Amino acid sequence: MTTPAAGGRPTLAVVGATGAVGTVMLSLLDERPDIWGEIRLIASARSAGRRLRLRGGDVEVLTLAPEVFDGVDIAMFDVPDEVSKQWAPVAASRGATAVDNSGAFRMEADVPLVVPEVNAHAAADRPRGIIANPNCTTLSMIVAVGALHRVFGLESLVATSYQAASGAGQAGIDTLYAQLATVVSAMPTPGGSTDSRSTGDTGLGPGQSAGDVRKAIGEHGLGPFPAPLALNVVPWAGSYRDGGWSSEEMKIRNESRKILGIPGLKVSATCVRVPVVTTHAVAVHARFARPVAADDARAVLRAAPGVAVLDDPAAGDFPTPADVVGTDPTWVGRIRQSPDDPCELAMFVCGDNLRKGAALNTLQIAELLVSHGR
Amino acid sequence: MTTPAAGGRPTLAVVGATGAVGTVMLSLLDERPDIWGEIRLIASARSAGRRLRLRGGDVEVLTLAPEVFDGVDIAMFDVPDEVSKQWAPVAASRGATAVDNSGAFRMEADVPLVVPEVNAHAAADRPRGIIANPNCTTLSMIVAVGALHRVFGLESLVATSYQAASGAGQAGIDTLYAQLATVVSAMPTPGGSTDSRSTGDTGLGPGQSAGDVRKAIGEHGLGPFPAPLALNVVPWAGSYRDGGWSSEEMKIRNESRKILGIPGLKVSATCVRVPVVTTHAVAVHARFARPVAADDARAVLRAAPGVAVLDDPAAGDFPTPADVVGTDPTWVGRIRQSPDDPCELAMFVCGDNLRKGAALNTLQIAELLVSHGR
Repeated sequence: MTTPAAGGRPTLAVVGATGAVGTVMLSLLDERPDIWGEIRLIASARSAGRRLRLRGGDVEVLTLAPEVFDGVDIAMFDVPDEVSKQWAPVAASRGATAVDNSGAFRMEADVPLVVPEVNAHAAADRPRGIIANPNCTTLSMIVAVGALHRVFGLESLVATSYQAASGAGQAGIDTLYAQLATVVSAMPTPGGSTDSRSTGDTGLGPGQSAGDVRKAIGEHGLGPFPAPLALNVVPWAGSYRDGGWSSEEMKIRNESRKILGIPGLKVSATCVRVPVVTTHAVAVHARFARPVAADDARAVLRAAPGVAVLDDPAAGDFPTPADVVGTDPTWVGRIRQSPDDPCELAMFVCGDNLRKGAALNTLQIAELLVSHGR
Repeated sequence: MTTPAAGGRPTLAVVGATGAVGTVMLSLLDERPDIWGEIRLIASARSAGRRLRLRGGDVEVLTLAPEVFDGVDIAMFDVPDEVSKQWAPVAASRGATAVDNSGAFRMEADVPLVVPEVNAHAAADRPRGIIANPNCTTLSMIVAVGALHRVFGLESLVATSYQAASGAGQAGIDTLYAQLATVVSAMPTPGGSTDSRSTGDTGLGPGQSAGDVRKAIGEHGLGPFPAPLALNVVPWAGSYRDGGWSSEEMKIRNESRKILGIPGLKVSATCVRVPVVTTHAVAVHARFARPVAADDARAVLRAAPGVAVLDDPAAGDFPTPADVVGTDPTWVGRIRQSPDDPCELAMFVCGDNLRKGAALNTLQIAELLVSHGR
């Protein structure tokens, strides 16, 4: 990043300002302390010229082009992998530090992968002028896992996800809403299914036959998902990788290793999309080098920056996506020690995938660069 | 069970015939080979006198009372724990073998817990005249896990569930439908949320604030669940147990140990309710005594009775609840060996919780007793 003129405030660029994550980014810029000079909003030619609300005014969206990065100190990217791959180096070559939320650079050896609460130090070493932001599912749990690792020493991790539709962008959100409207219109009258063994060929019921949901939605209504998401869960996110793993599952493994600095960490993940709009949840089963009593884990997590503990299930207190959406922390509940192995801990973690899982962490990295004057 | 008169067909009783599971039981009795003489349908006084369709005719529902078990060979119970606790011994005292799907007897040392594909032999030793049917979540995965155990030797199991609303009975189904209708009426117009940062106080959107779903549904609309289920997932099922574990999670641990005959098996489960009507899914991460190549696991599972393999994610083939609901097998997909540990296998398992998870397994036990003439 170019050091801004003495006393001047840094110039920030938001690339991908009109997408689902970009929209949340603008909210965050309004909510958080305003440390910025100029803020440029940038998008593809299709969205350029639109005006978006920011800091109480309207800001025109600029078209992505090399010149828009001139004078920019920090450029945050939330665009598809191939766009980042092309344009983050352009921003860096014009003197900006690029903070990129795509998958294009995360596993590059000379690009740090940063979660400020876990490995802020890594941001200082960025030979290519690029810092990567982790995948949203990794981010939904890594702040909590990292806090426990510092004290108890993580040895292995099983993570199974309950991922929201907005992880697939605005198309994911729109698809889920459209599917829900369709299946609701095909639903039986509440209470009416007690006596009937079937609600007919098109109706849905407890004994709905195979494919009824799929039929109601239709193949054209699947959107970015490989199967219906309304009234369903879909055990696939991302693209195919060796051995039948999904790219999303391998991201959790590889990014966790890099962020935590444990190259040989055993990680096994199953990523499943659920009919939730926003906020990823992850069931974490972790094994540590030392015994982890639940109370000790709770104390560590309560003291950890960026973590909120909500864990009194007897009183109905545990985090759910609907309760934590729109908030910043990584929420942790259902903390329990294995009765079979004192070194094993289970917990249920929720994080807003558009905030901490994407926009917030990206912005925190940008703020970190400013506060450290680097 | 009383041996029926020579050449006579056994008399069957269905206790709880009007519930969500009972309804599926009647379907199964119509679909499967009819080996029964008289079939008596029994329910509480509230439902008695109703007439239900069975074998092409109408059968009147009888009130639960000691006399209704006279002459009954096998009595299948699908009623709350406390009802089973009282009435299964009554049926046994009148000469019937009770096959009970409640939690009342599952962990009793002198009551076998039976899954015909896994431990049919255990049904023979039933000193109290009672055989227990496992919990629906255990049943959703145990046939597949048992088949792998026989070949590779199970050492530890992490199971995280995606449990359907009908696991909480008809009230669960009705609650989910009612909540979905409510949230759909509060939904933004599809595609309309791209430009707006909020859809207003009552609307739902990607950046919906904490509690919007809860507000839309209202506390009175939670039904049998401790939090909203529509557009949400709820990491709690059952009642509170020591150490913060839920009763549902402890059932998976304790029942798996008993069915598989591995008293010291390490099992760690997280049970989560999802907005699906019927069919439980379970992400299984299992460690075995021997290395398990994915192809070897697939071959074992393909040859296993009661298991169907659907596992070609590159072609979009994996089981989802919406696709397998209404079918009998335990469906398995996403079979993959850990890149970090050759003895560890991950898979995604789906089973209809009202069929194999409840009614079907109960009926299979009853059929087993008849076919073995015991």
